[in-house]
Amino acid sequence: MSSIVPAHGGLLKPLLVADKEKNTKLQQDAENLTKIILTSKEVSDVIMLAAGSFSPLEGFMCKDDYESVIKNMRLTSGILWPIPITLAISKETADRIDQGQRVALVDPESDEIIASMIVEGKFSYDKKTEAAGVFGTDDRAHPGVKKIYDQGEVYLGGSVEAYSEGQYPEKYPEYATPAQTRAIFEEKGWNTIAAFQTRNPLHRSHEYLTKVALEVCDGVFIHPIVGKLKDDDIPADIRMKCYKVLLENYYPQNHTVLKVYPMEMRYGGPKEAVLHAIIRQNFGCSHIIIGRDHAGVGNYYGAFEAQDIFDRFTDGELAIKPLKLDWTFWCYKCGGMASMKTCPHSKEDRCLISGTKLRDMLSQGILPPAEFSRPEVLKILMDYYRSLDS
Amino acid sequence: MSSIVPAHGGLLKPLLVADKEKNTKLQQDAENLTKIILTSKEVSDVIMLAAGSFSPLEGFMCKDDYESVIKNMRLTSGILWPIPITLAISKETADRIDQGQRVALVDPESDEIIASMIVEGKFSYDKKTEAAGVFGTDDRAHPGVKKIYDQGEVYLGGSVEAYSEGQYPEKYPEYATPAQTRAIFEEKGWNTIAAFQTRNPLHRSHEYLTKVALEVCDGVFIHPIVGKLKDDDIPADIRMKCYKVLLENYYPQNHTVLKVYPMEMRYGGPKEAVLHAIIRQNFGCSHIIIGRDHAGVGNYYGAFEAQDIFDRFTDGELAIKPLKLDWTFWCYKCGGMASMKTCPHSKEDRCLISGTKLRDMLSQGILPPAEFSRPEVLKILMDYYRSLDS
Repeated sequence: MSSIVPAHGGLLKPLLVADKEKNTKLQQDAENLTKIILTSKEVSDVIMLAAGSFSPLEGFMCKDDYESVIKNMRLTSGILWPIPITLAISKETADRIDQGQRVALVDPESDEIIASMIVEGKFSYDKKTEAAGVFGTDDRAHPGVKKIYDQGEVYLGGSVEAYSEGQYPEKYPEYATPAQTRAIFEEKGWNTIAAFQTRNPLHRSHEYLTKVALEVCDGVFIHPIVGKLKDDDIPADIRMKCYKVLLENYYPQNHTVLKVYPMEMRYGGPKEAVLHAIIRQNFGCSHIIIGRDHAGVGNYYGAFEAQDIFDRFTDGELAIKPLKLDWTFWCYKCGGMASMKTCPHSKEDRCLISGTKLRDMLSQGILPPAEFSRPEVLKILMDYYRSLDS
Repeated sequence: MSSIVPAHGGLLKPLLVADKEKNTKLQQDAENLTKIILTSKEVSDVIMLAAGSFSPLEGFMCKDDYESVIKNMRLTSGILWPIPITLAISKETADRIDQGQRVALVDPESDEIIASMIVEGKFSYDKKTEAAGVFGTDDRAHPGVKKIYDQGEVYLGGSVEAYSEGQYPEKYPEYATPAQTRAIFEEKGWNTIAAFQTRNPLHRSHEYLTKVALEVCDGVFIHPIVGKLKDDDIPADIRMKCYKVLLENYYPQNHTVLKVYPMEMRYGGPKEAVLHAIIRQNFGCSHIIIGRDHAGVGNYYGAFEAQDIFDRFTDGELAIKPLKLDWTFWCYKCGGMASMKTCPHSKEDRCLISGTKLRDMLSQGILPPAEFSRPEVLKILMDYYRSLDS
C-alpha cells in the first residue's frame, strides 16, 4: 500500500476549472473582461497555480501575504512559503482596475486567456525591499532581482480561476500535474520518492546524485524546469533530448519517472530551494535532492546555504525532506563517482571540467571523457553547440 | 550543536562498575561465589551488557521477558527486543543454585570473573520453541539453532554487575563502548550517523553501501562484530587489517569511525537485524545499513525479510532508522558501482564473483579485478588463504 506525502498545507488545490464545458464557457465569457497581458514568468505561475503545483496558494498574493512571505517566510496563515508569487502591472493599467473586479489573464505568446482573477488587492511595493528580502541582494546583475526591476510598479492579488495550461501540455509530452504524478507514484506503490530539480543537462555528477537518492528511496523523480531560463542556459528541447537518452541507457525504467514543470527559475538560492521543495511535496515526493549552491547563480549564495535553510523549520512545516548532497565527481583514485564528503583524495585525482571548458571542448568537437558525462549526452550537446557556432 | 539519538529505551545502562577501586574489591569478593563458566557467546553478551550496548537490559532475561521476546518481540515493559539474551546452565549446576543467590560469571578463556549476577529466575525452556520463534527454523544445521541445542537445559536470569570487558579492550585497540562512540560523534558534531554491521572483509560492494550512506549522513560508523564467528568466516584479525587498509586509502578520515564490538553472530536474519539496529542506536547511530539478507545464513531467510521487519514497528519504537539498500556490484555498462535498483543492465554486464570463486582465485594467487575489491584488501586476503593452504 502506498502512502504518499500530503500536499503542502494539507490539500492539493488545482485552480484549473476541471469541467470541460464549463471551462470553455468561462474562458469565452472572459473575453469581455479587462485583459492583463502577463510576462512569461507570470504565465508560468498561472499554470503552476492551475495544476495545483503551488498549493495551498489560490491565486496571486495580496499585500498581507506578500509582506509576510518576505519578512517571515510564512503566509499570514502561518504556512511556510519562501518567495512571493505576484502579478505586476504598470501604474497606468492599475488606474483602470478596481478592487473586486474580475480581470482576464492573457498569455502573450498565444493571445489565449489562460485564467481570470478577482482583484482582491492592488498595492504598490518597494522593489529594493523585495529584492533584498527574497534574494539577499539588490544587485540588478542578479537575474531574479533584474526581473523585479523590469516589471510593473503595482501588484494585483486575488483568487485565480484557470482555464488553460497554455502551450505546455502540447509542447511537452512529459508535462504532468501533481495529481498525475501522485497517481503514477501510487500505482507504482512507491512511498519514498526523491525529486531531482534541474535546469541543466545531466552529467555523471548529477546522475550520481540521483542514483544515491534512488539507493535510499523507492523511486527517483527527474523533474526539469522548462519555463523560460537565462539566455546562457541550455534550451529545454535540447535538455529533454539529453534526459531521455540518459534515462534510456542508464536508468532503471521501473524506478524512474521523468516529468517537466513550467516554472521559471528565480535563481533565488536557499529560498528557491524551499520553493522547489514545496512544489515537489505537492507532486508527491518525500525527498528532494539539494546539492551545492542549489538554485544559485554567480556568487550570491554560500555553497551550503540552500541546505542549511531547511534546519530552520520546525517539525511538520514541510513533509518533504531535503537529501543534502555534496559536490560530486569522478575520482580516478576512488575508481568511481564520489563527493567531497566521501572521497579522501585530492583535486588532481578528480575529473573536473568547468562549464566554460565543457562548452569550449564541445564547440571544438572534442569529446570530454566518459567519466565526466555519458557519450550519448555529450553528442547531443556537441551538436547543439556546434549549431550555435555555425 | 550535535543531537545524538537517545539510547534504546531512553537511557544508556552500562553495567560495568565504573569506580575502579570498588570494581576491584567486588571482583575479588566474587571469588567466594558459586562460579558459572560461561560459553564464548555468554562472555560476549556479558561484555555487551557491561558496556551498555544492550541497553535497556540490566542482565540476562528471566522467564517473563524471555517468553515475551520470543512471542511478541517485546520485553514485558513493551520495549522492542527481538532475540532473548540468556545464560544457560546444566541441570546439575542448576540444582546447586538458589533463587536470590549471587553467582560469579567466569570467562573460561582467561578464568577471570567478569561479572556477578543475582539469580532472579531459574527456568527450563523448550529449545524447539525458542529456535522456531527466534530463527523461524528448528534445523540444527542453522548455526544459531545449533547453539541452542548445544547449551544447557536451564536458564538463569537476573541483574548483572560487571567487573571487566574481558580481553577485548586489550586485543582490539578499536574496542569502544556506546558512551565512547557517542562522545566521538558528539565531538565531531555529527547528527546523522550510519552504522555498518559487518562480519566480512569489505569489498567494493560493501564500500559502496557505506559510501551511499555517507552521502546522506554526516558520518559512517564501520562497526565489525569481533565475537567468535562460524569456522568458515574470516578471523577478526585478518578482517581488521582489511578494514584498516581500506579506510586508509579510500575513506575520508573526517567522516569515518571504525570501532569493534564483541558480540557473537546469531545468524538470525530479520530478528538479528533488529538487534543490530538496537545496538547501533545505543552506540549513537541514527541509521543502520540493512542490505540483502542481513545477518542471514544459508537459505533460511528471504532477501528482503531483514528490511521488511522494520515496517512492522510503530513510530517511536526505534529511534534508529534502517537504510534499506539492495544488492550492489560494479556494472561495466554503468561504468561504476550500482545496485539491482539503480542499474538497468543485465547480469552479464556486472562484475560478480561468488565467495567460493573468490576464495579459489585468491588461494591460487589470482588477483580478482579492482572493480570487485581493492587490491590492497585482496592482497591481505590472498596472503591469508595461501597461509591456510600451505
